Amino acid sequence: MISFELPKSRPNDFTRVLPVVEEVIKGVREKGDIALLELEEKFDHVKLDSVVEDKVDELAEKIPPDLREAIDYIYDQLTEFHESIKPYNAGGNSKGVEFGVLWKPVEKVGIYVPGGNKAYPSTLLMAGIPAKVAGVSEIYAATPPSKIDPAICYISKKLRIKKLYRLGGAQAIAAFAYGTESVIRVDKIVGPGNIYVQAAKFLVSKEIGIDGIEGPTELVIIADENADAKEIVLDMKAQAEHGTSTFIVLLSTSQSLIDQVVPQLKDDNIIYYIIKVSTIEEAIKVLNEISPEHLSLYVANPKKYLDKIANSGAISLGATPPAIIDYAAGPNHILPTNRWARFKGGVTVYDFLKPVMYAYTEKPDEKLIRSAMVLARHEGFEFHAKSIGVRYGRE
Amino acid sequence: MISFELPKSRPNDFTRVLPVVEEVIKGVREKGDIALLELEEKFDHVKLDSVVEDKVDELAEKIPPDLREAIDYIYDQLTEFHESIKPYNAGGNSKGVEFGVLWKPVEKVGIYVPGGNKAYPSTLLMAGIPAKVAGVSEIYAATPPSKIDPAICYISKKLRIKKLYRLGGAQAIAAFAYGTESVIRVDKIVGPGNIYVQAAKFLVSKEIGIDGIEGPTELVIIADENADAKEIVLDMKAQAEHGTSTFIVLLSTSQSLIDQVVPQLKDDNIIYYIIKVSTIEEAIKVLNEISPEHLSLYVANPKKYLDKIANSGAISLGATPPAIIDYAAGPNHILPTNRWARFKGGVTVYDFLKPVMYAYTEKPDEKLIRSAMVLARHEGFEFHAKSIGVRYGRE
Repeated sequence: MISFELPKSRPNDFTRVLPVVEEVIKGVREKGDIALLELEEKFDHVKLDSVVEDKVDELAEKIPPDLREAIDYIYDQLTEFHESIKPYNAGGNSKGVEFGVLWKPVEKVGIYVPGGNKAYPSTLLMAGIPAKVAGVSEIYAATPPSKIDPAICYISKKLRIKKLYRLGGAQAIAAFAYGTESVIRVDKIVGPGNIYVQAAKFLVSKEIGIDGIEGPTELVIIADENADAKEIVLDMKAQAEHGTSTFIVLLSTSQSLIDQVVPQLKDDNIIYYIIKVSTIEEAIKVLNEISPEHLSLYVANPKKYLDKIANSGAISLGATPPAIIDYAAGPNHILPTNRWARFKGGVTVYDFLKPVMYAYTEKPDEKLIRSAMVLARHEGFEFHAKSIGVRYGRE
Repeated sequence: MISFELPKSRPNDFTRVLPVVEEVIKGVREKGDIALLELEEKFDHVKLDSVVEDKVDELAEKIPPDLREAIDYIYDQLTEFHESIKPYNAGGNSKGVEFGVLWKPVEKVGIYVPGGNKAYPSTLLMAGIPAKVAGVSEIYAATPPSKIDPAICYISKKLRIKKLYRLGGAQAIAAFAYGTESVIRVDKIVGPGNIYVQAAKFLVSKEIGIDGIEGPTELVIIADENADAKEIVLDMKAQAEHGTSTFIVLLSTSQSLIDQVVPQLKDDNIIYYIIKVSTIEEAIKVLNEISPEHLSLYVANPKKYLDKIANSGAISLGATPPAIIDYAAGPNHILPTNRWARFKGGVTVYDFLKPVMYAYTEKPDEKLIRSAMVLARHEGFEFHAKSIGVRYGRE
C-alpha cells in the first residue's frame, strides 16, 4: 500500500508488555536457572537441561564453506570500520592542571542475538566486533534455543565469546542483568529484540548499561531524478522484509521517479510513505523531523548535504544500497529507532568504552585555586574550599 | 563513625518513589502548565504565575564581582577541558567502501540544576559547557524556584541558554520530556538530582535521552605513606558535606596514616570506611569492585597505576584535591555512581554528540558484494541480497 502522507506518530509499543516482563524478571531474580528453564519451555517451547550451549565448537564445524568465507571477509571489514573511528586517550594542560580522558573498556558485555524461526548471525557480528575492538575482556551471547545456527557458533568462536547461552526474550535480558547459577552477570547488554526484549532492557537499565532500545526498522530514502527506480523499489522491499511494522519513506524531488515506483509497490502488504518534495533541502528538513534509523541519500553529490543532516542512525550515500550497511559495509545495523537518532548514534566501539576523566596538578594557577574556593563557599561547601586551600597554603 | 569493613551493598533508592513519580509525570502530560504550577506549590511551596524565569538579565547583574570573576575563569578552564577531548569526524577506506562517523550535536538539551535551600551554579557550568563545546543549538535549564541564584542567571547568559525554568523535581523532568505550553520538549536531559529526579529520569528514558541516573556522592581514596593525613581528613570531610548517604572509603597501605586519620573522623555523623591494604595493587582491585564516582589516587608516581584502574568516574592524581575536580580542574562532577562506572563515564562533550555512521561506495570489492549477499540469503532476506546485487549486475 502507498500513503502520500506521513503518519502523525510512530508509537513504540513495548510499554504495554512492561507488567508481564516485570514478572519474568522477578522470576529470574528469585529462582535463577529453574526460572530460565521454565520460561524457555513456556515461551520458546524447548525443554532444556542447561541454558549453556556446550557444543559451540562442534556446531561451528557445520558452517558451509561459502558462509564461513563470507563471515571472515565481513569480520575484517567491520573490524576496519571500528578501528578507523576508535578514540585514543586525549587531554591537555591549562592553568597549571594536566587533564584528559582515559578510554577504558567495559569489562563484561552480554550480546542479545534475536532468533526464533530465523537466526541472525549478522547481529552477533555487529555487536561483537566493536566490543572486540574496544578491548572488552569478557563477551557473552544469548540467542533463543529453538535453532542454534552454526554461523552463530562460528562467530562466537572468532570473537572468543566466553559462553553462548540458549536463552531468548525477556528472560535472557534478566539473566544477563542479575546473573543466575549458569549465567554471568554482565555490565552492559547490547542488541536488538522484540517488544519483550525491549521492555526488559528498559527495566534493567535501572542497574546496568544498555545500548538503547531498538524498535522496528526505519528507512528514509531521499532521491533525485538521477536515482534508479528499480533500485529504489528493491531497497524499499528489502527493508519491508523486516515485517509489516517497518517504517519506509521515499522523499523525492522527481515526480517521474515516484510514478515509476508506485505501481511496483502498491500491492505489497505494508504501507510505504511516498512524498514529493520541491528540493533536497526540503527533504532533509522532513528527514531531520523523522530522525530515522537509516537514510539512503540517493542524490547527485550526496556529500554536499551532509552538513545539513542532523538526525539519522546511519547514512548510505549515493547509489550505495542501504542493505550493504545491514551486512558488510562497516557501519552498524544496530541503530536508534523511534526518533532516538535525535540524541544517540548506533552501536559503535564507543558503546564499549568509557571516558574516565582525570586531573593532575601539583600547583594550579593562583587564580584557579581562588576561583574554586570562591565558588565552593558560595555553594556553602566550606570543607570543599578548605580541602583545596590546605594543599596550597591558603586556608 | 568509622567502619573497618566495606558494606555488602549500596542500594539506590529511587525505585521506591517510582509510583508517585509516575503520577507526577501523568499530571504534567495531561494538564501541562497548570499541573506544573500546582506541583511547584505542593512540593516547593512557591506560588508561581509562570514557570519561565523572565528576570534572568536583571538577576545576573546582582552577582558579586569576585564570584563573577571566579565563574569566568572556571568557564574557560572547563571549555579547555572539553575542547581537548572532543572528537572529530573520522573514518577510512576498506574493500572499496569509504566509511566513517560524523559527530552531530544533539539539538535541544535540558539541564537540571538541583536546588532548594541551596543553589548549585557549578552544576550548570558542568552540564552547560560540554553542551556548548559540542555545538548544541538550544540549551534550556530548570532549577527549583525557591531560590533563583544570580550566579545561575549569570551562567545562563554566558551559555546563551534559551530559557531558564523555575521548576524542580520530577515535574521539571516531565516538562522537559513531554513539553507543556511554556516548556520546550528537549531531546536529552542532563543533570543530577534527588531520588524524585532520578526516578523521573529513569521513566522518561523510554522516550528521550538522559545522561544517566546519579545517586549520592562516592569517593575512594587510595593513599600510601607519603599522603598527608590532614589533607586526607579534609578530603573526606569535604565529600561528607554532600549528606549522610555519601559513601567515603579510604584504602591505605599505611597503618600510621590510618592511625592519624581515624581520631579526626570518628565523631562525625557519617560512616567513613577505612581499610588497610597490603599493596596499592590490592587497593586497586577493591576500587575496581567498588567502581566509585571519584577516586583520589594519593600515592607516589600515581600515573604508573592508571593502566590497572578499570572502573571510576573521575580520578584526581597524587596530591590533587578531589574537590578541585568538583569545581574547577576541568573534568566533570556529574559522574556515574552506584557502580555505573562499570559501563559509563561522566558527562563530557560526548554526551551531546552522536556518531552518525555512513558508507559510500560506487563499487565495493567483488568479494564484499558476494559476502553480503551470502549472509543476507542465509538469514532469509532475499530482497536485501537482490537490492545489493542489482547495483552491481549480480542479481
